[in-house]
Order: sequence, then C-alpha cells, then structure tokens
Amino acid sequence: MSNKQNTQIGQLGEFGLIQHLTNNIKIKQESTKKGVGDDAAVLDLQGKQTVVTTDLLLEGIHFDLTYTPLKHLGYKAVVVNVSDVYAMNAIPTQITVSLGVSSKMSVEGLDEFYEGVYAACDYYNVDLVGGDTSSSLTGLTISVTAIGLGDADKIVYRSGAKKNDLICVSGDLGGAYMGLQLLEREKKVYANNPEVQPDLSGYDYILQRQLKPEARKDVSQFLSELDVVPTSMIDISDGLSSEIKHICEQSKTGCRLYENKIPVDPTTSMLAEEMGINPLVAALNGGEDYELLFTISQDDYEKFAGKEGANIYIVGHITDESKGCYLVTNADQEVELQAQGWNPLKK
Amino acid sequence: MSNKQNTQIGQLGEFGLIQHLTNNIKIKQESTKKGVGDDAAVLDLQGKQTVVTTDLLLEGIHFDLTYTPLKHLGYKAVVVNVSDVYAMNAIPTQITVSLGVSSKMSVEGLDEFYEGVYAACDYYNVDLVGGDTSSSLTGLTISVTAIGLGDADKIVYRSGAKKNDLICVSGDLGGAYMGLQLLEREKKVYANNPEVQPDLSGYDYILQRQLKPEARKDVSQFLSELDVVPTSMIDISDGLSSEIKHICEQSKTGCRLYENKIPVDPTTSMLAEEMGINPLVAALNGGEDYELLFTISQDDYEKFAGKEGANIYIVGHITDESKGCYLVTNADQEVELQAQGWNPLKK
Repeated sequence: MSNKQNTQIGQLGEFGLIQHLTNNIKIKQESTKKGVGDDAAVLDLQGKQTVVTTDLLLEGIHFDLTYTPLKHLGYKAVVVNVSDVYAMNAIPTQITVSLGVSSKMSVEGLDEFYEGVYAACDYYNVDLVGGDTSSSLTGLTISVTAIGLGDADKIVYRSGAKKNDLICVSGDLGGAYMGLQLLEREKKVYANNPEVQPDLSGYDYILQRQLKPEARKDVSQFLSELDVVPTSMIDISDGLSSEIKHICEQSKTGCRLYENKIPVDPTTSMLAEEMGINPLVAALNGGEDYELLFTISQDDYEKFAGKEGANIYIVGHITDESKGCYLVTNADQEVELQAQGWNPLKK
Repeated sequence: MSNKQNTQIGQLGEFGLIQHLTNNIKIKQESTKKGVGDDAAVLDLQGKQTVVTTDLLLEGIHFDLTYTPLKHLGYKAVVVNVSDVYAMNAIPTQITVSLGVSSKMSVEGLDEFYEGVYAACDYYNVDLVGGDTSSSLTGLTISVTAIGLGDADKIVYRSGAKKNDLICVSGDLGGAYMGLQLLEREKKVYANNPEVQPDLSGYDYILQRQLKPEARKDVSQFLSELDVVPTSMIDISDGLSSEIKHICEQSKTGCRLYENKIPVDPTTSMLAEEMGINPLVAALNGGEDYELLFTISQDDYEKFAGKEGANIYIVGHITDESKGCYLVTNADQEVELQAQGWNPLKK
C-alpha cells in the first residue's frame, strides 16, 4: 500500500467527487434516456414490465474490509442485485449505487470500488444511472437498486410452484459460506501472529464464490431456449433451506429435498470436513451462493434431455402443503428444513 | 417513554420483522403488479418514461435522533425522494425503503418510522414496493429509491435553461436551515442544563420546515394547468445558490438573482437575526427546503397573470454563460454565488 496515492475525499468536495466517480460512465441500454447528473434518471421502458430490487450492504455486517478487496466489493454489490432480477426471469438494465463513506476512505479507494462496479455493469450489460454520495460517521455503507425488464407472461414469482413440480438449482452450494469461514480463520491466525502468512492455496474456487460471485445470467437465457418458464424462482442468498421454504410458503406447498442430490463442490466438502463443519449444513444454511433455485413442471422435464449448458441439478420435488418441508437424508430419514435468515440480536 | 413497550427486534427475526413491517401495505398504483415479497417488485410502466432517484440518509450526518421523531423521519425520507421526481416534472408512483437498524432500536421504534413512511405514501399516492432490512453495527441507515412516470415531452432536465428565461422558486427559503439551528441550540442548552425545558414556542413553521417538509406535488399540476413546461427544474435540497449553479452549469448559462426578490418567511428572518445569522445566507446556502427551482421562457410569463395557487416567486433571470452567476444585492452590488454542497472533511 505504501506506494499508493491517498487523496483525501474532502479535497474534491461532494460535487467534485461525484464528477470524478461518474466521469467515465458509458450508456449501454437503449432504454436509458438520461443517467447520472439530474434529480433523477429517465428510462424509457415501454412494452415490458419493470422489476425493481434493492440491497443494503453495511461494513461489519455484510463485508469485512480487512480481507475484501474494494474492487471485488463493488463487483459483488452489483451482482447481488442483478441476481434478484434474474430470479424474476427478467433482464437487468439499470442500477443506482449510493455510498456512505467514512473519512478514512481515500479517493483511490473509492476508485477501486467503482472499478468493480463498472466491471460488473459491463459484464451484466447494465447502466449505472444514479446514486447518492454522502459522508458517514462510521463504516462504509452501500445501497444498490437494480431495475430490469421482462415479458409480462414470463416473469416468475415465488408463488407459482405446484405439487409434483421438480425443484432445480443452477450450481453447487455452500462454497461461498466455506470461503467466508476460511477468510475468518486466516484473519484470526493473522491477528494472533502477524508473522504467519495466510494459507489460502488450493482454495481459489471457494474464495471466488465468496469474494467475486457471479449472478446466473445464463440460466434465464438457457431456459428460454428450451422454451421452459419455471413455475417459481428465487435466488439463493440466504441458503437453500431458507429459499425453498420461501417458495413453499408463498406457493402453499411442501417439499422434499434429497441429500444425495444436493450439489456440493469437492473443495467445499474438503474444507468443511477439515474445519469440522458438515458440508450439508454449509449447502443448506450457508448463504451468498447466488445460484438460482426454481421449480419446473414435470411436463418440461424431457426438454432438458441431452441439453447441456447451465448445469441444472434436480434436488427434489414439490408436495402438498400438509406434507411440510423436509430433507430426505442418505439414511432415508426425514429432517425438517429450518429457515435461518438474518437475526441480529441472536448472533 | 416509560409506558411504551419495547420489543427487541431479535424476537421477531428477519422474516418476522419484514412481515410485521409490511403487513398493512395497500397497493394504490395500477402500475404496481407486485410489491413487497419477492426477489423484486414488478411494475407495468407502459407508454411513459420512468424516472428513478435515490437518497441515502445516515444517522449523525443527515438526522439527529435526539430531536427527530421517528415518524417524522420516515415521512421526510420519502419526501426528499418524491421531491426529486417532481423536479423532473414527473409523478412519483413507487418507492423502496431499505433500513440498517442498530440493536438499540425497538420494534415499536421501527413501527413509528414506518407510520411516517406510510403517511407519506398516502399523501403522495405512491406504493412501497420493496426494500431490504439489515442489522447495523452503528446508527440508523435509511436508503430510499423513488420511481415515477412522466410524458416524454414534458420531462424537465437541469440543462434546458436559455438566456432571458425567468428564474422561479415555489416558496420561501431558509426556513428548514433555521429550524435546524434552533433544534441544535436547544439541544446544547439541554445538554448544559437538563432542567431547562427547550423553548420552541412561536417557531412552529420553521420547525415543520425542518422536521416535516413537504415536496411540492402541486407545482407540476399547477404548471400543467397553465400549459407551462419549465425549461429547466431542480429541487432545492442544498440551497438556492448551489441549485441555480447546477442549472447554469448544465445549461451553459449565467444568471442574476435579486436579493429583494428572494422569498424569506418572517419567522425565518426573525430567528436568523436573533441568532446573528444573515437571513439571506440561510436562504442562499441553507438546504432542505424542498421547494422547486425552475426556469420559464419569458413568453410564458403572461400565463401566470391573475393565476394564484402555487406561490411562484420570480427571483431573477438567466444570462449568457460569460456573465457568470451573481446575486444583485439591495445596494446594487454584484456578489458571486458560491455552491456549497457536502464536504465531509472540511467540516
């Protein structure tokens, strides 16, 4: 860090800072009529339905700057929002990014953050069209809102799952959670003995799952090519258990998941066992994988035959509501699924 | 406070809390197809242009909970956003509200906050369609995004002012700033001697300007009835000086404001003089009045003749860019306008 320039934010002032951070925005979406620089952005969204989603990320709660590179953080802040848009079977088009920054943050630090934001905007083809920048008395605060478009008859809610539908996930689970455990472990080792270098070798995959996750923009494209509209869909931000329970509650159904069907990457399993964590627990209750969880009608099953592309795993099926929500273990026992989610005061 | 119930947020859990806070939402806008409760809200915004704006409010920077009732804070958080939508000459239709709450906040406190949010949603006829609720390690964090609709040919940008246009404001200025000064003074008196009751009598108007401001939803309606489309418009959140300079910069013009034309309420002047503050400085540089500042073509001037309704004050005119941005004082001197805005490290 010693060679890096550190420009105090106060040297630029509010308007100077906004100008500095938004100078290089290039508009990509035809629907963006006016982006940053007025009281509001102006979008022309004719003929489709609009989806809107927002997430708030707070330092110390959602991220730890001691091991999270700012560029990755900017990227991830966009990813978690566009992931919600894909989970509606819609295409993200615009985002706004608001920041509360403490005085310890430099202009160069903010530039790194925005490099990540812009990289994600490029990859997901969305325009940054607004935001608000403010000083913060405490840590870094990030609020992102994403807007997307979808055809009215193809938008997918959480509430459409039906008995006998197949439950699918778009990729392996538990990796982001184990990545976080690894980073927290190495942080403690370093705190106890700063001479010891963190040992992160061989764990690239799960570190990436935690630090630079991707939203599954390919899935809705893939399903559209197969002419499949899921009956329900949600993105996996709080863990499979919690998300399938959201679908079942809103669809008024039950479900059965099968332990031996749940996709877990070998690196995830290996580290979990090393750390004395059941890999299944990481997959069921660890969050932040940003895979899509969706249900399809059995009639659509054969459309997947012989089609490769989006790594779709069938992990269970939908039942009557009266059957409840259970995991069927490899020992053929039924264990009730628990939704965890955020619960600040019980931590 | 002693009789009030204080339910710990942790007792409800994340999903219970969201349910509790969003139980009573009633959808008002036809364009709201799906509000809270999925990965994203779904809006059907056909045939008009959409505007999007967002604001981040942080405890200790934008509000002080020692003298700001939570209900007022919830109301104001909505107002500052819909004000930006009106400043585009558009009509607000939906908002999202995200909160980071510290463990010291009770469920009842959050209920009060949302009472204010819902009261504003009713008054401005907007739907609350989403948000994110998170724990915070520090103070209260509020992020609101507003969406609105406008006709493509009637949306007003900051960039359209032309030489000789008249500069108008929709109401008196400096009141919100003096309200803040009064609250800060009484807070200090109380800190020095808790026996002394705060003396706020006779200042209802400016306290309301600070604690429960309103966005000028009547102005765009009034202008529309007169068949006037402003050439440029902005809402006054950072002070008249700062805002007219935004218009002039984006329109590539200069301006002249006239001291004797700037509307200041007698209560504002009286308190300013009592506290040794120049009322003109409060009007030019004090923020948060949420009046609209706009320019109209001289050709439209006669349309205002004999029409009362929105308290429009003409405070100056637009000039060539080369003439710069100046205030003409009562002594006929020209003083260059300074944009202040937020500058955290210089405070």
